[in-house]
Amino acid sequence: MVSHIDLADYIFRRLHQIGVRAVHGVPGDYNLSALDYIEPAGLDWVGNANELNAGYAADGYARIKGVSALMTAFGVGELSTINAIAGAYAERAAVVHIVGTAPTHAQQQHLCLHHSLGDGDFRVFADMSVKITVAQANLTDPSTAPAEIDRCLRECILQRRPVYIELPTNMVKARVSAAGLEKPIDLSLPPNDEEVENAVADLILKTVYASKQPFIIVDGFTSRYGISEEADELVRVTGFPTSTTPFGKGIINETYPNFHGIYAGTAGKQIYMPWARGCDVVIRLGPLPSDVNTFGFSTTPDPKSTIIFDGESVEIKGTRHEKIHVKPLLRKILSRLDQAKLPRYDPYPDLGDLRAQLAALPPTGQDDPIDQATFWQRISTFFHTGDIVLTETGTPSVGGRDFVLPPHTTLVNSSIWLSIGYMLGACAGAALAQREMIAEGTRPAQGRTILFEGDGSLQMTAQVFSDMIRNRLDVVIFVINNDGYTIERWIHGMRAAYNDIQPWRYLEAPTYFGAPEDDPEYPVFTKRAGTWGDLNDVLANPQLRRGKGLNIVEVVMTREDAPDALKKLVESTSRRNSGDLEPPRAITHEEKVMKVAG
Amino acid sequence: MVSHIDLADYIFRRLHQIGVRAVHGVPGDYNLSALDYIEPAGLDWVGNANELNAGYAADGYARIKGVSALMTAFGVGELSTINAIAGAYAERAAVVHIVGTAPTHAQQQHLCLHHSLGDGDFRVFADMSVKITVAQANLTDPSTAPAEIDRCLRECILQRRPVYIELPTNMVKARVSAAGLEKPIDLSLPPNDEEVENAVADLILKTVYASKQPFIIVDGFTSRYGISEEADELVRVTGFPTSTTPFGKGIINETYPNFHGIYAGTAGKQIYMPWARGCDVVIRLGPLPSDVNTFGFSTTPDPKSTIIFDGESVEIKGTRHEKIHVKPLLRKILSRLDQAKLPRYDPYPDLGDLRAQLAALPPTGQDDPIDQATFWQRISTFFHTGDIVLTETGTPSVGGRDFVLPPHTTLVNSSIWLSIGYMLGACAGAALAQREMIAEGTRPAQGRTILFEGDGSLQMTAQVFSDMIRNRLDVVIFVINNDGYTIERWIHGMRAAYNDIQPWRYLEAPTYFGAPEDDPEYPVFTKRAGTWGDLNDVLANPQLRRGKGLNIVEVVMTREDAPDALKKLVESTSRRNSGDLEPPRAITHEEKVMKVAG
Repeated sequence: MVSHIDLADYIFRRLHQIGVRAVHGVPGDYNLSALDYIEPAGLDWVGNANELNAGYAADGYARIKGVSALMTAFGVGELSTINAIAGAYAERAAVVHIVGTAPTHAQQQHLCLHHSLGDGDFRVFADMSVKITVAQANLTDPSTAPAEIDRCLRECILQRRPVYIELPTNMVKARVSAAGLEKPIDLSLPPNDEEVENAVADLILKTVYASKQPFIIVDGFTSRYGISEEADELVRVTGFPTSTTPFGKGIINETYPNFHGIYAGTAGKQIYMPWARGCDVVIRLGPLPSDVNTFGFSTTPDPKSTIIFDGESVEIKGTRHEKIHVKPLLRKILSRLDQAKLPRYDPYPDLGDLRAQLAALPPTGQDDPIDQATFWQRISTFFHTGDIVLTETGTPSVGGRDFVLPPHTTLVNSSIWLSIGYMLGACAGAALAQREMIAEGTRPAQGRTILFEGDGSLQMTAQVFSDMIRNRLDVVIFVINNDGYTIERWIHGMRAAYNDIQPWRYLEAPTYFGAPEDDPEYPVFTKRAGTWGDLNDVLANPQLRRGKGLNIVEVVMTREDAPDALKKLVESTSRRNSGDLEPPRAITHEEKVMKVAG
Repeated sequence: MVSHIDLADYIFRRLHQIGVRAVHGVPGDYNLSALDYIEPAGLDWVGNANELNAGYAADGYARIKGVSALMTAFGVGELSTINAIAGAYAERAAVVHIVGTAPTHAQQQHLCLHHSLGDGDFRVFADMSVKITVAQANLTDPSTAPAEIDRCLRECILQRRPVYIELPTNMVKARVSAAGLEKPIDLSLPPNDEEVENAVADLILKTVYASKQPFIIVDGFTSRYGISEEADELVRVTGFPTSTTPFGKGIINETYPNFHGIYAGTAGKQIYMPWARGCDVVIRLGPLPSDVNTFGFSTTPDPKSTIIFDGESVEIKGTRHEKIHVKPLLRKILSRLDQAKLPRYDPYPDLGDLRAQLAALPPTGQDDPIDQATFWQRISTFFHTGDIVLTETGTPSVGGRDFVLPPHTTLVNSSIWLSIGYMLGACAGAALAQREMIAEGTRPAQGRTILFEGDGSLQMTAQVFSDMIRNRLDVVIFVINNDGYTIERWIHGMRAAYNDIQPWRYLEAPTYFGAPEDDPEYPVFTKRAGTWGDLNDVLANPQLRRGKGLNIVEVVMTREDAPDALKKLVESTSRRNSGDLEPPRAITHEEKVMKVAG
C-alpha cells in the first residue's frame, strides 16, 4: 500500500469505495486537472452539457444508488447547479458536490480572478451552500484533508443530503496520507440506548395492540432512512389498512390486499378522509409534511393519535423521543410483534383498489383522444418488475399517483422542491445508476428507466438528451404534449399567454442532439401518439417494450385536460396563495418546522 | 390620476417609466397572478424556456438598454437564475429581479410549502442574494412598498447592478398609493463639492500637461458609469495613444488614428508592453482589473503613474479621492482642457493598426480551412454601423479582440464572470433591446445582432433558440464548431475525453425548436461553412447580410486551432492554477480588491 497519494486521487478512490461509479459535471479551468484522476480511480466521467442538468442527474443517480458525485467549477459552475443541490437537500439525495476553486494563495491575496465577483471575496459562494448542504469542507491543508473528506462523505450518506467540498486547484496534487483508504469510511451509528429502545418499542406495541382503528401511512423519507424493508414488513405482518403519500408511493408492495393507494385527503375519495380522521392509531413512516404531499395539509393526522417514525426520532401521540435510530427500533418492534395481539377492528369502508379500478376500465376506442382521466391507470400495464418510473412535476406527478405498480419497481417523483425540468435530468442519472446496478447484479436485469415528462418541463433541461446519447443511456420517455404549462393554467390564467410555450418538434431530439443513426448497440425509437389507437400500437412495439436505447413517445393530450386530482389540488394552492388558508386544525407544529435529523 | 393601485401594477408601471419594455422570466404558481399586470402596464412578457436563460437574456437586454426586469418564482426559479444574477453583479448589468414568494402569513407560520427546503425558513434564498445584488426589498407592507420599489430601482440604475425584490403572492393585489408614479424616480446624485472638483480637475490637467509619454486605456465599466462619450472625446481631443482592454473594446471610435487595438500585455505584440510600462501618465477609464481583462495582471499600470476614473472616485498617482462622480468631473476636464498645453511627446513605436493588418491579409483560397488566426479579422468586413456584436467566452471572446469595428457598433463580451452559455442568452436579450430601440429611434435602423458562439457554450443554454423563435428575434449566429471545449483543451487536457462534447446537428435548431416554415415575416437561414470558399459565399448572402429572422452559420474549425492570444493567455492561467504566480510587481492593491462604487 502506498503511504501517500495525491489529494484528488484520495477523493475519487473514496467515492469509489462508497459505491459511486460515475462523476457528473462539467469541466472548467479550476477543476480540469482534478478530472485526470477520475478514470484511474475506476470512475466514469459523465460530462453533462450544463451544470444544472448535471446536478439533477447526480440527484437521480443518488436516489437509485444511494450516493453520487458532482464536480463543478467555483462561481459560475456551482451557482448554475445550486438549485439542484437545494432540491437534493429538501428531498434527501446524497450528492457529494466537489467544487474546483481558485488556488489558495490567489484566494489569500484576494486576487481579482475570473469566476469571482471581483471584490476579492472567495467565500461568497461557499457561504451560499451552507444552508443547503449538511457538511462542508475547504481542502486547504493536506494533513487534515483526508479526514475532512471522510467527515463529509459520512454525513452525506448518513443524512442522505448533499455535502460541499472545495478543492483548490493547487491542492489537486498535494500529497496526503493514503492510510484512510485501507478501511472503509465509518458509517456506524452509536447504538440506541437499549433500555430506551426497549421501552419505546413496548410502548409502541402496546399502543398498536390497543388500537381500534389503525392505519399506516408510508411516506417517501422511509426509503431515505433505509427502512423500506421494515415498512413493507410492518404493512404485510399487521395487515393494517395502508396508504402512501404521493412521495411514498412505490416503497411498499402494492399487491398487498390491505394497500389502498394514495390517501389524498380533500383531493381523494369522499369516504376516505372521514375514515382516516377517525383512526385512533396512525403509523406514519418517514413523513415529508409538505403542502403538496399532504394535499394542502388535509391528510396530516392528529398528532394525538399518531406514531411517527423519522430518521433519528420517534413521536408517540404527541411526545417526541429524540436520538433514536428508527431502523433498529423498527426491527425490534417487528421481532417482538405478536400477531395474536393485533387488534380485531371493524371492517373498514372501500378505500380504493387501483388494480380493480384499472381492470374495470372500458376498452379504448381506436380514435379516442388520450385522456388524462384514464391514461395514468392504463399505462400501468406497460410496467414490470425492476422498472424505475419517474414522473415530472405537473400533470405526470399528479397523474402518476394512479399508477398500479408491480412489485420491485421504483417510483421517483418530487414532493416538495418541485423544480420542473428536474425529472429529465434525474432520469439520466437514474438510467446510469440502473445500468451499473444491473451490471453489479443489484437490480433486476429486465428493469427499464421510464420517464413521464411534461412539455414545458422538458424545455427547461432539454440538453439532457445530449447527455443521454453521449453516455448511451437506455431510456423510455413519454413526453406529454399538452401545449403549455397545464398545471399553471389550472392554478391561474387558463388561457393566459404566459402559460403558453414555444411548440417544439419533440421527436427530433435524437437528430438534433446527435444520436447515432442505425447503431444496433444504441437504437433510437420515436413515435407520436395522438389517439388511443396510436398509443396502444406504440406500447406493443417490441423495441419500446425492451427499453434499450433512446425511446421517445410524444403523447398528445388536450391543453386543458388534467387529472381530477390536479384540479382539486390546485384549488387549495390558489386559495393559499391568495390569502385564504386551510382551517387551522390541520396545521401542526410538525408541518411548520419539519424535523430533520442532524 | 387614481390615488391607489394594486402593488403589482405599481411595479410594472415603474419599470415602464424607467425604460423597460419587456419582462423576462418563467411563470410559476407563486408569480402567476402578478403576470396579469405586465401587459396592461405596456410591457411584453418574454416567457423564456428556463430561468438561467431568462437571467442571461435580462442581463444582455440591460447592457443594451440600460436596465431590465426578470421575474421568477422563489426557491427553484430564483436559484436557477442566480448564476446570471451574480454575473450581472460582477460585470454591472442593471437587472431588476422580482421573485414571486409564498404568501406572508404562510411564511410567518413557517409552513412546509413546496419550493421551500421544508424547514420553515423562508429567508434562505433571499439571504443568498444579498451579496450579489446592491439592494433588496421584501414587499410585505403596502404603506412602504412603493418607496421600497423606488429605492431598489434607483440603486439598480445608479450602480448598474442587480437588485432583488420579493413579492409575496398575497401582496400582488394589495392597494398602494399611486402618488409616486406622478413623477419619475429620482436618479439625481448629490453634486460634487465644487471646490474639490475644481482642484481635482486642475490637478489632473496639470499632470496630463506635464506628461512626457501619455497613454489612455479605456475599459468596460466606462459604459456602465455613463462616461463613454466623455472617454471618446478625451481620446479624440488629446490624440494620446489609446488602447482598450478586452472588456472596453467597442466603447470608443476605433477609426481614430491614435487607436491601437487592445493592449494585451504578455499576450500581445512584443514591443507594446515595454513601451506601455515606460509611460509616465496612464489614464485608465472604468477599469475591471480581472486576470483575463489584464492578461494575467500584465497590463496593469504602475499606480504611481496612473490616473484612474472609477464611477464614484478618482485615483491620481496612487492617491484616491472618494465620492467624486466622474461624469461631471470628466466634463469639467474636457471643458477646461487647453490643447495648446498638451505635451509634445516623442514618436511612439508601431503599437498596431487592426485596419492595416486586415487590409494586408492575403486572399483566402476557396478550399482553405477556416483558421482561427485570421477568421476574427476577416469577419470584420461583415459588420456595419449599428450592429451589436457579442462574443461568447472562449475562442470567440479571445478571437473577437481582433475585430475591426466600425463606429457606432456595440461589442458585448464577458471579462470576469466568464460563464459559458451566457452569451447565447444575452444575445436574445440584446436582440430584443435592439428591436425596441430601433422602433424608438434610439439605435440605427440597419443595426443587427450578431453572435459568435462556441459549440460547448451553445449546449449549455441551447433552448435560448426557442426564446428567440417565440419572440421572433432577429439574430445572426456564427456557431464555431471545433468539436469540444477548445479553450479548456489549451489550459489542460488537450486530448482528454472530458474536453469532448456530444456532437450535435447544430443547424437543426430551428426545426427542433419549432421555427416557422416559410414565414416571410420570420425567415430562417442555416448554412454550414467548412472552407473559406463556403464562408465567403455565406457572408455574401443577402438574407444573412440583412440579419432579419433566425440565421445560423456553422463555422467548422479544427479542434486544436486557437487564436495565438488564447494560447498565450492560458499559459498564465495554467501557471497560476498550478501555483506559480506572476511576479509580485504586477499585483497592486487595486487588483486585489476591486473598488466598487457604493
